[in-house]
Amino acid sequence: RRELLKHHFFTRRIIFGHRDFDKWLEALGKGEKVIVLTGFMPSGTPHLGTAMVFEELKYFQSIGAYVKIVIADAEAYAVRREDRDLTIRFGLEFIKHALAWGLNPEKAEFYFQTAMSEAYYRLIQMFSRKITMAEMEAIYGDLSPAKVVSALTQVADILHPELEEFGGFKHVLVPVGVDQDPHLRLARDVADRFEGELGLTRPSSTYHKLLRGLDGNKMSKSRPDFAIFLDESEEAIRKKIAMALTGGRATAEEQRKLGGEPWKCMVFELYTYFLLNDKELNELREECVKGRILCGECKRIAIEKLVERIREHRKRYMEINENLAIDRIVKKPSF
Amino acid sequence: RRELLKHHFFTRRIIFGHRDFDKWLEALGKGEKVIVLTGFMPSGTPHLGTAMVFEELKYFQSIGAYVKIVIADAEAYAVRREDRDLTIRFGLEFIKHALAWGLNPEKAEFYFQTAMSEAYYRLIQMFSRKITMAEMEAIYGDLSPAKVVSALTQVADILHPELEEFGGFKHVLVPVGVDQDPHLRLARDVADRFEGELGLTRPSSTYHKLLRGLDGNKMSKSRPDFAIFLDESEEAIRKKIAMALTGGRATAEEQRKLGGEPWKCMVFELYTYFLLNDKELNELREECVKGRILCGECKRIAIEKLVERIREHRKRYMEINENLAIDRIVKKPSF
Repeated sequence: RRELLKHHFFTRRIIFGHRDFDKWLEALGKGEKVIVLTGFMPSGTPHLGTAMVFEELKYFQSIGAYVKIVIADAEAYAVRREDRDLTIRFGLEFIKHALAWGLNPEKAEFYFQTAMSEAYYRLIQMFSRKITMAEMEAIYGDLSPAKVVSALTQVADILHPELEEFGGFKHVLVPVGVDQDPHLRLARDVADRFEGELGLTRPSSTYHKLLRGLDGNKMSKSRPDFAIFLDESEEAIRKKIAMALTGGRATAEEQRKLGGEPWKCMVFELYTYFLLNDKELNELREECVKGRILCGECKRIAIEKLVERIREHRKRYMEINENLAIDRIVKKPSF
Repeated sequence: RRELLKHHFFTRRIIFGHRDFDKWLEALGKGEKVIVLTGFMPSGTPHLGTAMVFEELKYFQSIGAYVKIVIADAEAYAVRREDRDLTIRFGLEFIKHALAWGLNPEKAEFYFQTAMSEAYYRLIQMFSRKITMAEMEAIYGDLSPAKVVSALTQVADILHPELEEFGGFKHVLVPVGVDQDPHLRLARDVADRFEGELGLTRPSSTYHKLLRGLDGNKMSKSRPDFAIFLDESEEAIRKKIAMALTGGRATAEEQRKLGGEPWKCMVFELYTYFLLNDKELNELREECVKGRILCGECKRIAIEKLVERIREHRKRYMEINENLAIDRIVKKPSF
């Protein structure tokens, strides 16, 4: 099983924790039906934080898992109060970007929360019976009807693949950021409560660090200056990385003497997540810590590598955008 | 339009109030697409209180309306915590009884809340955005997740026939007991809020008195001794009516002198709702008030008439039960 965990997200501790991942791996090893499920909020163009999840999904596909991807349009509309048409449009864009980043469409399935079939919605209605307001408030704080419906929808997202109607996958794995764990615990509780009635079992989960923005805070579309979007121009990437927070010292002289601090550096974070193999990464860290490479040069390397990666992405995106019969990939909501 | 309102439910003020019924009648008069919608809780065999609604629906069919009937199985399961298999079985029974009572299947449609198509559920998710907890609490008191989902489902029941997907009926009429008015007000508010986005318009409603049980309190399946069920045996009907609360005096002598008080009498209530035409009813009231007929004899008449009505119902029910392809009438939930 260790063999399966050689991806750099594991070796570099980007994925740092789990619940019942071992059980899921065991099922995978035995050739049982396993699935990886994750959801995305369709509220803008994906950035590198999203691409990190694409990477995870590609990895899980590569070791034999089927992947199911939720476009959380119901939540975007009701809780985040996004425009519905935009939400659908962003959802379709999202799918194109996921495929352009390299997700294998043969082993993946996408769906809009508002375009599912009735057995999925039936779960939302049924789950409502066995969850209390107190349990939901413990997770979501003050509740609105929109949050209640959204939370139940999320639990249905996580558990519906276990139904015969949706493939009967008894082993569901949900890779998330650790901030999402309360939802997973809710889904596990619901699975327990419907074990007898619907034969549900607890989902597994892995927890990954969140790629930070170029200023060291959260990478978010609401702070576009510090995020790198997958449709970003070469020029914009160059500018943004040039401005990124590093672990460099106050002066070049000082840095040559004391060395840089890569653990504080957002450029090094990009290397860690996306850009270098283990050997390159170790060498670069060494060069940095010993003061043999300065931030300017290091950034130039990062820029070239990232520009190349995004260029390749853009090329595949353009092909997909022209040739993809999106209607065959996903069912669009009728209104 | 007055012509349309000659049914004894109107002339006897059993239907005693409305919201925008005149608008609905006007649309009907103009030959526009109108619909009557009502819902039933599938938690037991229908009784005469339910049959009263069947009567209303038959009447609305007779003046040209299409009828849509909700089997509220999601609510029965989640809020009333009924067994799901039983709920589905009672729902199917309910449909047979409605048809046996005389509802025209050519002008009616039944559905289970948990077996609808996605556009209906999408409404539930969308409506959640524009309803507050405070509004729901004002109607339902303390909320549970089940009540929140149920309330939104109910609003979707009332408003979904307006969608093109479901017939595009712009004039929905909901005949209810007056205790249901808060739900109607909620549905009207939601219609207003989605007028722009989805083109919804306010539903109309009529309000009927609720047939009481034989002891003068609510007719309910939870007090079976005082309710008359549509699958009741002749013997049980005889016994129950013999025990019914009447407007009779302490002694026969006194009653001959002072006369009975039909307005206090549950047997007279049955006559008013179901058993007599206007001429007969007036004569009987006269006989009673003048002390010329005593309760024993009056009950015997009621028993014969009701037994006959139920016998006719049972005969039609048996035929339907044997010959009805229920799968062609309603889509059953898959689990």
